[in-house]
Amino acid sequence: MKYQVGVIAGDGIGPEVVAEAQKVLNCVADKFGHEFGYEDILMGGCSIDATGEPLTDHAIEQALHSDAVLMGSIGGNTSTSPWYKLPPEKRPEAGLLKLRKSLNLFANLRPAYLYEELKEACPLRDDIIGTGFDMMIMRELTGGLYFGARKTSEVDGVVTAVDTLTYTENEIRRIAIKGFDIAMKRRKKVTSVDKANVLDSSRLWRKIVEEVAKDYPEVTYEHMLVDNCAMQLVKDPKQFDVILTENMFGDILSDEASMVTGSIGMLSSASLNDTKFGLYEPSGGSAPDIAGQGIANPIATILSAAMMLRYSFDLDKEADAVENAVKQVLKDGYRTIDIMPQEEDKKSAVEQVGTSQMGDLICERI
Amino acid sequence: MKYQVGVIAGDGIGPEVVAEAQKVLNCVADKFGHEFGYEDILMGGCSIDATGEPLTDHAIEQALHSDAVLMGSIGGNTSTSPWYKLPPEKRPEAGLLKLRKSLNLFANLRPAYLYEELKEACPLRDDIIGTGFDMMIMRELTGGLYFGARKTSEVDGVVTAVDTLTYTENEIRRIAIKGFDIAMKRRKKVTSVDKANVLDSSRLWRKIVEEVAKDYPEVTYEHMLVDNCAMQLVKDPKQFDVILTENMFGDILSDEASMVTGSIGMLSSASLNDTKFGLYEPSGGSAPDIAGQGIANPIATILSAAMMLRYSFDLDKEADAVENAVKQVLKDGYRTIDIMPQEEDKKSAVEQVGTSQMGDLICERI
Ligand SMILES: CC(C)[C@H](C(=O)O)[C@@H](O)C(=O)O
Ligand SMILES: CC(C)[C@H](C(=O)O)[C@@H](O)C(=O)O
Repeated sequence: MKYQVGVIAGDGIGPEVVAEAQKVLNCVADKFGHEFGYEDILMGGCSIDATGEPLTDHAIEQALHSDAVLMGSIGGNTSTSPWYKLPPEKRPEAGLLKLRKSLNLFANLRPAYLYEELKEACPLRDDIIGTGFDMMIMRELTGGLYFGARKTSEVDGVVTAVDTLTYTENEIRRIAIKGFDIAMKRRKKVTSVDKANVLDSSRLWRKIVEEVAKDYPEVTYEHMLVDNCAMQLVKDPKQFDVILTENMFGDILSDEASMVTGSIGMLSSASLNDTKFGLYEPSGGSAPDIAGQGIANPIATILSAAMMLRYSFDLDKEADAVENAVKQVLKDGYRTIDIMPQEEDKKSAVEQVGTSQMGDLICERI
Repeated sequence: MKYQVGVIAGDGIGPEVVAEAQKVLNCVADKFGHEFGYEDILMGGCSIDATGEPLTDHAIEQALHSDAVLMGSIGGNTSTSPWYKLPPEKRPEAGLLKLRKSLNLFANLRPAYLYEELKEACPLRDDIIGTGFDMMIMRELTGGLYFGARKTSEVDGVVTAVDTLTYTENEIRRIAIKGFDIAMKRRKKVTSVDKANVLDSSRLWRKIVEEVAKDYPEVTYEHMLVDNCAMQLVKDPKQFDVILTENMFGDILSDEASMVTGSIGMLSSASLNDTKFGLYEPSGGSAPDIAGQGIANPIATILSAAMMLRYSFDLDKEADAVENAVKQVLKDGYRTIDIMPQEEDKKSAVEQVGTSQMGDLICERI
């Protein structure tokens, strides 16, 4: 079958890591007899340079006509890049927010787990790591403070800025359903995170989550306050299976969770709407400081392509093949620089490779 | 001199730990020739039980007439306590929020540091701990999402909840000044945390912080996005001196930071307004599960009393004496149950003591 993939290479290390993910997809195509068509889509800084806009209507059209979109990363150095001299709605990140909203990508899935082979990179003590951890952060992506009305104006001569955090019961219900659905395929536990002791939106969140939970009698669920969750992620990450939360809390907690794993160069993400369409991107940033050097870790992007195979194309066998190839390449001792062990004696046991070599090594194992 | 201290014992372990802090204050009074008068103030669950309100106008009056307020903790088990069947504005926490606002306590100082003696309790790897860390979280406490208008209503038949995040330039300026002032007494570094790539309030925050920074040429400052800060606290907490941030981000990050130290039973906090008045409380919660057993760690509350001596009464020598006594008691090997080492072989090197004994041991060392 032929699948049409929109490709947003983006800025920084984006083009390098996306190239490796495409290499892997082509390898899957050969091996399993599929065809992937690619169409390049401009977004972020490169789009600003070419068109003056971080995301054009044409680009949105292209994304809408794809079966799924694979993305590298967007944005640059916020202190030095001229993109950050532009007004907020013209900056690279505004393109990403606009794409999320235009395509109604309300469900953001961010797996955070510890790779056995990369245990040493985990910042936590061995006894806290225990047998490892494996969570899925389910973040609402098109509501809350990100998309509410905002305004900066003078009120009685004093500059005042206002942002609004809005959630409707429907927005909460559809993401809660996704969260419980995912939990059913995992360890059947949902931790819903809010700040219900302060926010009205959180109290509505809690109420709707409780309603949805009734339809999933097999799933154990709990409510946790966001400040407590920020603590528990450090104290005992093993306790979590699915973390279900609103947009801003999800932004903060998913980054904390991915750092806690120590495997940030390895973590993929998917942003889904109510169809089979999805936007797939690595969890890490555009790392402009190492762009163009051929040393970036392409694994998170390759695993994002695997998520695309699984969630948008229902190609589970193919997704498994990619994920297993990644595990094998780590077992075989290949590492990009960001996941090299720190201790001298452990360095000799592994081999450091570049971006493109890592892609090749993964292809060989598919 | 005579100082008038309002005492909010509160709920859970509150009364037990506050009693020890008062014991220590009395010891300081004897030793240094001061007098502390105490007046009990009802707030939280105990106030609901006695008056039907989490904080009465009478209680606010009492606080206003004190030179400073020492607090234990408020609130109970949110799933089982009848207090949480009440409407939000009648629950224990609403009392605390009302007190903060009524007394204009806009500056919340939360020190987070690693006690050399409690290194084993730190969840991070030894090489990340390094020589330890010592941060001060400066959290804005009377603005933002906590005090903006909120409303839950039906919009076109759909239940919709709205919270508002508002900051004026004046609110930002006064907390920024406090942050830079504190940095001048410390390692002269400020990390201002915001989400300026999304929020108008954060962009105003950034602008005002930059203006204030101009008056502190000796202080190095940087801006950091909140999601990145949540990562950096786990990856490399040593990099931080003063973290300056708005109310909700400060709630999340200060709890994460205190957990990262592993010394959460040891961390105090101060909430200040523009006078010498302050509200002093431990960073931890009311721990209803261990209330009344005489095992709670009183050190965070005792150190909060030390902060009170320093910030509200200008009694630096006396504050030093309390802080040194705490360090000494740890050196001498006394531990409450929450800070006992986990490994069996290390347990024999220390002695486990209860709440009241810990208070006595600290008094002996003043
Ligand atoms: C770039 C930024 C607007 C974005 C967000 O905050 O959602 C990013 O941090 C993310 O998590 O994908
Ligand atoms: C009890 C709650 C309202 C409060 C807050 O969120 O400010 C607490 O978490 C704190 O940090 O003091």
